[in-house]
Amino acid sequence: MGEVAMYSFKNDYSEGAHPNLLKALQQTNLEQHQGYGDDVFCTEAAHLIKETFMLNHDEIHFFVGGTQTNLTVISAFLKPYEAVISADSGHVAVHETGAIEATGHKVIPVSSHDGKLSVAQIKDVLKTHIDEHMVKPKLVYLSNPTELGTIYQKSELEAIYEYCQEQNLICYLDGARLWSALCCEKNDLLPSNLAQLTDVFYIGGTKMGALCGEALVINQPMLRKDFRFNMKQKGALLAKGRILGLQFSELFKDNLYFELANHANEMARLLKVGISSLGYQFMVDSDTNQIFPIIPNKIVALLETKYLFTRWDSTNRTETVIRLVTSWSTSEKAVKEFIQDLKKFTVLELRGKLMDS
Amino acid sequence: MGEVAMYSFKNDYSEGAHPNLLKALQQTNLEQHQGYGDDVFCTEAAHLIKETFMLNHDEIHFFVGGTQTNLTVISAFLKPYEAVISADSGHVAVHETGAIEATGHKVIPVSSHDGKLSVAQIKDVLKTHIDEHMVKPKLVYLSNPTELGTIYQKSELEAIYEYCQEQNLICYLDGARLWSALCCEKNDLLPSNLAQLTDVFYIGGTKMGALCGEALVINQPMLRKDFRFNMKQKGALLAKGRILGLQFSELFKDNLYFELANHANEMARLLKVGISSLGYQFMVDSDTNQIFPIIPNKIVALLETKYLFTRWDSTNRTETVIRLVTSWSTSEKAVKEFIQDLKKFTVLELRGKLMDS
Amino acid sequence: MGEVAMYSFKNDYSEGAHPNLLKALQQTNLEQHQGYGDDVFCTEAAHLIKETFMLNHDEIHFFVGGTQTNLTVISAFLKPYEAVISADSGHVAVHETGAIEATGHKVIPVSSHDGKLSVAQIKDVLKTHIDEHMVKPKLVYLSNPTELGTIYQKSELEAIYEYCQEQNLICYLDGARLWSALCCEKNDLLPSNLAQLTDVFYIGGTKMGALCGEALVINQPMLRKDFRFNMKQKGALLAKGRILGLQFSELFKDNLYFELANHANEMARLLKVGISSLGYQFMVDSDTNQIFPIIPNKIVALLETKYLFTRWDSTNRTETVIRLVTSWSTSEKAVKEFIQDLKKFTVLELRGKLMDS
Amino acid sequence: MGEVAMYSFKNDYSEGAHPNLLKALQQTNLEQHQGYGDDVFCTEAAHLIKETFMLNHDEIHFFVGGTQTNLTVISAFLKPYEAVISADSGHVAVHETGAIEATGHKVIPVSSHDGKLSVAQIKDVLKTHIDEHMVKPKLVYLSNPTELGTIYQKSELEAIYEYCQEQNLICYLDGARLWSALCCEKNDLLPSNLAQLTDVFYIGGTKMGALCGEALVINQPMLRKDFRFNMKQKGALLAKGRILGLQFSELFKDNLYFELANHANEMARLLKVGISSLGYQFMVDSDTNQIFPIIPNKIVALLETKYLFTRWDSTNRTETVIRLVTSWSTSEKAVKEFIQDLKKFTVLELRGKLMDS
Repeated sequence: MGEVAMYSFKNDYSEGAHPNLLKALQQTNLEQHQGYGDDVFCTEAAHLIKETFMLNHDEIHFFVGGTQTNLTVISAFLKPYEAVISADSGHVAVHETGAIEATGHKVIPVSSHDGKLSVAQIKDVLKTHIDEHMVKPKLVYLSNPTELGTIYQKSELEAIYEYCQEQNLICYLDGARLWSALCCEKNDLLPSNLAQLTDVFYIGGTKMGALCGEALVINQPMLRKDFRFNMKQKGALLAKGRILGLQFSELFKDNLYFELANHANEMARLLKVGISSLGYQFMVDSDTNQIFPIIPNKIVALLETKYLFTRWDSTNRTETVIRLVTSWSTSEKAVKEFIQDLKKFTVLELRGKLMDS
Repeated sequence: MGEVAMYSFKNDYSEGAHPNLLKALQQTNLEQHQGYGDDVFCTEAAHLIKETFMLNHDEIHFFVGGTQTNLTVISAFLKPYEAVISADSGHVAVHETGAIEATGHKVIPVSSHDGKLSVAQIKDVLKTHIDEHMVKPKLVYLSNPTELGTIYQKSELEAIYEYCQEQNLICYLDGARLWSALCCEKNDLLPSNLAQLTDVFYIGGTKMGALCGEALVINQPMLRKDFRFNMKQKGALLAKGRILGLQFSELFKDNLYFELANHANEMARLLKVGISSLGYQFMVDSDTNQIFPIIPNKIVALLETKYLFTRWDSTNRTETVIRLVTSWSTSEKAVKEFIQDLKKFTVLELRGKLMDS
Repeated sequence: MGEVAMYSFKNDYSEGAHPNLLKALQQTNLEQHQGYGDDVFCTEAAHLIKETFMLNHDEIHFFVGGTQTNLTVISAFLKPYEAVISADSGHVAVHETGAIEATGHKVIPVSSHDGKLSVAQIKDVLKTHIDEHMVKPKLVYLSNPTELGTIYQKSELEAIYEYCQEQNLICYLDGARLWSALCCEKNDLLPSNLAQLTDVFYIGGTKMGALCGEALVINQPMLRKDFRFNMKQKGALLAKGRILGLQFSELFKDNLYFELANHANEMARLLKVGISSLGYQFMVDSDTNQIFPIIPNKIVALLETKYLFTRWDSTNRTETVIRLVTSWSTSEKAVKEFIQDLKKFTVLELRGKLMDS
Repeated sequence: MGEVAMYSFKNDYSEGAHPNLLKALQQTNLEQHQGYGDDVFCTEAAHLIKETFMLNHDEIHFFVGGTQTNLTVISAFLKPYEAVISADSGHVAVHETGAIEATGHKVIPVSSHDGKLSVAQIKDVLKTHIDEHMVKPKLVYLSNPTELGTIYQKSELEAIYEYCQEQNLICYLDGARLWSALCCEKNDLLPSNLAQLTDVFYIGGTKMGALCGEALVINQPMLRKDFRFNMKQKGALLAKGRILGLQFSELFKDNLYFELANHANEMARLLKVGISSLGYQFMVDSDTNQIFPIIPNKIVALLETKYLFTRWDSTNRTETVIRLVTSWSTSEKAVKEFIQDLKKFTVLELRGKLMDS
């Protein structure tokens, strides 16, 4: 198991690709194909995505990673003085090392406890940006699920999109873990809603079983012109673009995507139920493949001897919010062991056996 | 053979990866590893590169593609008013859709008939950039082999590097096809010379048998600080960085790299000899895997019915410079057929049988 | 009085220049001088600034305006992934239309009720920016006085500068209204402290009696290299730079600067005392030339029939925070009238004579 | 005469402003006016410009300097992957320290012997920029007069504009010295032609008698949206914008502009005739206020003891191209003395009295 002697719940990109994808790469390996995404696999993948999301177009572009996608999209669509509205926990706001600003655009962070934006919050931003001495908010960045694992209900996305239309704002949805949202219990969004309720969105591959890859869907016709120029300029046109197309083709065949997302969500649910049953609370209520339990510091230290995960928030003195992430390849055995271990450590602590660390 | 019914000499990225690489991906697929390049495969690949190039350091970073590498390197190393000196045929000067300028830096193009830069040419640029009303040339961009297939002799690179040292210029070598240069007949550079005679260089993987991947080597210690911040900001930190490390590990095992480059060069040599023997001239004298024969237009049209290649220069009325590229996977059979076809078409034309197109 | 039929307390740049400056422009008008700031007047101004602030250097550059100064400074001193820490009310954070982001850098806004930053707040930012997935905070942007008219005490600036030194942060002080701070009652900073307790600061001219002009002082030697290249690139090297040098020379002769700032502050003090005596509160306690009284909406509407000023905050339903700004040329008569009018309107309101607007 | 003991033909911004402009500044100095260009003087100046150029609109913006104008215009109008076509001697191509690239855009330099662009040259650029791997040329940058003092004939500008319209290119004319072109002998352009034959152009003030200031005219309606946001972001909205409006008002009153340009041109003509009569050649044939005589090195050295001017091109061993610039304030006496001195030095040299320098 390589350098990772411990089981990792650190993220959903710890393993390689789903075996189907590797197999397809192998089978087509020596074929000659056009470079830079002008190949049959990208065409096929676009076709499958079009069907699944019931698109009325096939303006789909394949990227290697999420930050690359976000920075290309935003720099392509905004004028120099236009800005992004994002929840303060949004990936573009905090975890891309200023990638958006490096293309010249301000990201206006909106304080959000659950990682989501509401119409009221967007409205507030518009109300305070009134003249040419301030940036002009133009693109609303949503992630679904959010970086905190929460999801948008259909009515919420409808309200936001309607407001965006009204205010001439671009509605962009980052779906790095899109299927985890679309497959979770509380979800009421259909794939086709993404086509109807966003101007542009992307479907993550990296975090759902691909070696790499994100598929961008541009619904708004006015945003499509010359898009490949933007991709090339940002280093986002992959020479062997075929490997992106091929992987997405596989992911969309026979509902593999659904299957992988369901497994990830189910593993997260098991963790949640198990942790909950031991009496622990969660920072936020999430139904997708990321959960955020609040665990006493001493127990966190013990867990870290066997598992990899992220200390999310350590501001509290005695407890820490940790982040556990499951994926298409998370082993149920590992999940059960984790719960067993947590139970064991919890009992020890209750008996006062844990020394101060 | 997918959409490409014809044999392609269009580039060296028409196929997938060398089978060894795919096999390694398969074998390690379900292992869990750290993300973003902090994994054992990247460490191993760095170790092998260090040995091969006899580096005194292991400051090696893995990127997905060449444009991404170039734009990250240049924006990381230059101050806002500093500029790049490049041959006018240099990739950064013409074929990256302004990627360098998009990070804020001018590329000063130097007219070059063979794709190379000389000390005299660099000196001329410095002489004409004298005060704060002009950019300050700071980085010399070399490609080896160049975009025209030509290579730098050791004495030439020594002279350039010495001059760069003297003038406090950064010497950056783009090695997208580095092994093709290092393995070609006229080459007298050792891998270790790259460590000694550049400040930073990269070793191409995409064009030498990898699915994707370029390995950047930063020799100059002052350029290393915080480099990963730059990578992340440009969308160049791959989540599953392991697939880059693993592929480079395989390429450097048992001299696979040499083997692949030698095959590509040998295929180009066969083409060159065959084309030459039919009396054709070349735009430029190249020993690497790209050749540029000058072919009568009528024959070019016939060749295009069976082969894919690039019309490089059509300024002459009756003849066209075409580019033929070979790779690690070019079939010798296809090469021989191409020469046979060219012979056939040539004879036809000599007999006046070809009508004006 | 041109288009402004009403008396304006809207800002401190409603009038032209102090007569001494215009006179000097006239007297030297037909002399020939070198362009772009290489003239005797800039030299003289730099000399006077050096004396006043007791600098051990003469690295002083003249800009036309504040946004231009800020964007040039910040883009010159930061690497692409480095960011600015600013109070959320800081000029660079809100009122420059994303000028800093347009040069590629994130501005991290820190919530601040009085426009000031503390060491604790800066520390918090550093604590949450820990790896290459986030920007690296590098420059602390202070304004003195702040955009809310408040000032830094010497001990506060000492603490911030010490912390910056310790953490290798650049301490940059925006002194658009510097003299108003240095001349106000509660100030305990000496001009020489600016040289000792900042890496770089600028002295505003536009808001203190010049037609235009800001003087940038670079205390930190490592930040000086090639600075004029940055200026030229940002369009900040004025062809007739002499007019900036000449105006600053005049401002620093015979303590004209002090005199002008004292007048502005005194006018603000009179307003403050007058408004206070009528029982009104202020949003923030300011001793400089900007004050922020809280006035009932009906009275604000009446004042607007005779005076120009800014509605600063209208979130409260019945009251509005207004901003009144005085300058070197504010007339004492206008100040007294304003207070009289406010008194009159207040009495009317108390008597219930003001109808709902 | 300040630090300049010698008479300067170095540029057209060595002196201050035409006395009328200073007088107007003085007369209106204590009036209160709106900031940032929303004042009566800017309105009046716009009105006068509208009349003079027979505009059907009043979309006119006032900047402080030329580089600032160019970088704001180009970054406002281009998408990230779009580029500028410029003569290689164009100001944006060489003398703005990469200001255009700093906003993200490539400047494609076209080799030009006289500083002008032709339709054929623009066509050639378009022909070689064919796909998304290269920038997309979008804006044609012309200067009139050019940096070499040459001018466009009406038929030339018509042809370029027609081609731009056809190819959907933006035609931008930099008129830093516009009146010198429009007033010179060979000119056949009317002011109204600028409105008809460009999408956007600017009228220089700095080089025609203002302390500072350039007036930008946006003819193409689609380019006008939100333009002030771009200005503010680039630091180009002057707080006391009134001083720009007022100066332009004065320049356009009673044809002062014409008068000043005619004087500058006449002084250049006198120099040209005088130098020519001594047998000297010129690098380029110019009718405007810049001339480029070719003078033996020994004589250049002697002239430099009494006059300031620029050594333009020293590539020839025995002769140097020098640049002499006249302005609205150039003294006829100085011109005559210069010719006398040149005559004297020439005679000395002919007699072999000049030693090798």
